[in-house]
Amino acid sequence: MNAKPDNVLPDIPGGWPVLEPGWVWLLGAGPGDPGLLTLHGLNALRQADVVVHDALVGPEILDWVPERAERIYAGKRGGKPSPTQRDISLRLIELARAGRRVVRLKGGDPFVFGRGGEEAQTLIRHGVPFRIIPGISAGIGGLAYAGIPVTHRDVNQSVTFVTGHDQSGETPQSLDWKAISAGSQVLVIYMGMKHIAEIVGHLRAAGRPADEPVAIVTQATMPDQQVLETTLGRAVEDLAAAGLAPPAIICVGRTVLMRRVLDWQALARGEAPRELDPLGRDKPAAAS
Amino acid sequence: MNAKPDNVLPDIPGGWPVLEPGWVWLLGAGPGDPGLLTLHGLNALRQADVVVHDALVGPEILDWVPERAERIYAGKRGGKPSPTQRDISLRLIELARAGRRVVRLKGGDPFVFGRGGEEAQTLIRHGVPFRIIPGISAGIGGLAYAGIPVTHRDVNQSVTFVTGHDQSGETPQSLDWKAISAGSQVLVIYMGMKHIAEIVGHLRAAGRPADEPVAIVTQATMPDQQVLETTLGRAVEDLAAAGLAPPAIICVGRTVLMRRVLDWQALARGEAPRELDPLGRDKPAAAS
Repeated sequence: MNAKPDNVLPDIPGGWPVLEPGWVWLLGAGPGDPGLLTLHGLNALRQADVVVHDALVGPEILDWVPERAERIYAGKRGGKPSPTQRDISLRLIELARAGRRVVRLKGGDPFVFGRGGEEAQTLIRHGVPFRIIPGISAGIGGLAYAGIPVTHRDVNQSVTFVTGHDQSGETPQSLDWKAISAGSQVLVIYMGMKHIAEIVGHLRAAGRPADEPVAIVTQATMPDQQVLETTLGRAVEDLAAAGLAPPAIICVGRTVLMRRVLDWQALARGEAPRELDPLGRDKPAAAS
Repeated sequence: MNAKPDNVLPDIPGGWPVLEPGWVWLLGAGPGDPGLLTLHGLNALRQADVVVHDALVGPEILDWVPERAERIYAGKRGGKPSPTQRDISLRLIELARAGRRVVRLKGGDPFVFGRGGEEAQTLIRHGVPFRIIPGISAGIGGLAYAGIPVTHRDVNQSVTFVTGHDQSGETPQSLDWKAISAGSQVLVIYMGMKHIAEIVGHLRAAGRPADEPVAIVTQATMPDQQVLETTLGRAVEDLAAAGLAPPAIICVGRTVLMRRVLDWQALARGEAPRELDPLGRDKPAAAS
């Protein structure tokens, strides 16, 4: 399991990148399913002396860190305050300066509401070289595991990704919900569960209808993934009744209906599709 | 190189999914760098009897298809018309019904302007079982390779992805550029190079300033990646002068400036960062 990368990964032109001592690689772990880690990601983990990870990275992926490597948890734990961004950045700098091969492992993609840009900037300002390895963002891959395409030709030619809270823990003041709502037929909200009532209120005030489809996906891509299908009008009470816990991805828009035909995990369990043409846009060419 | 998956991939809880005869797996290849393929992706390719791929998938990834497997190209070639979506879907159905293990391999992510939802729906309507394997979308991972984070705390709490043309080849009529422009400080435009003058016109008319930073990234993540840094006011002439060719990702917004510090490929070549604090938002806590 901890063989050298050459023994495990297929050949790549130019060879696999080598994680040198004193470097930090910022690595996106993807939404959770360890199979959604990239090959560059596996190559990185296997070379690491130390892996600094957050709460969104599951134990399966951490199992691929070599036994000899140190694992450092940098996330919220129990009631204790989580380390600040500054604490984490300084720790990474310290580890790199000590000549360690450092992997900073974050859930999803480091550059999608992951503060990876800040971390990388701080590293560079301190002379620490870094590389970024993108990951699959939960707002795309997590919804795909729920059978929801973030774009669908009949529904939307744009999609907006929004973060449901900023560093203070509140919904960002700078968001123009009216424009966001008018700009994209499909919205994907990260970290929005805590403030769902407020977000729904903004979208309803912006004119999105009460019967607009909403999906709330928790533990996306993992065995305990749960998907709540609801509407803007019912989302708050349905969420309370379902008792789901974060982390969650919330999708608002008619692509949510595609889950009725595209829920491939249900199909794999032997369930029939609930509806073959949920958007009711049947065209002879498509139906053949 | 074509060893059985068990010999190559690390263990995963429950074991690696098995591609059964008669199934189609819709697989996102990512933006181009073969190292950005996921482990699920490699597992899929290695089991395929037949791989139906489009023009955006590079030869390196196709090299991982077993020799015994058939490769079918389903994209534009030379002056010939490309197969229609209907042609491709019917071909996939035919292959699956013949008991083949089919991988439908698409550049980027199949559900991000990739028409994967349509293909999957058509499969299900014909009783063909499918699985989706997400890929890294070029609008996120491709920009990361250019040193551009699609979100950055000081710049944006939302990001909008837009397709620059619809199935007719024109910019989609349904796009409300004024709302899109007001809704997100950062816009990522797929397939926008052909209509860049029109897109810039829409954004300027919506009030985005002429000096707003723009990056145009071609062949993202590949050795011949090129990045044009320009502004909304100069983008059309700069693009013409640079002579870049599609495929391209266009990013509009102040996160583009972060490339001046985060261009990790330049740093890896030994170049110094051009600017340490390109957004000029230095905070004592971040600078330490």
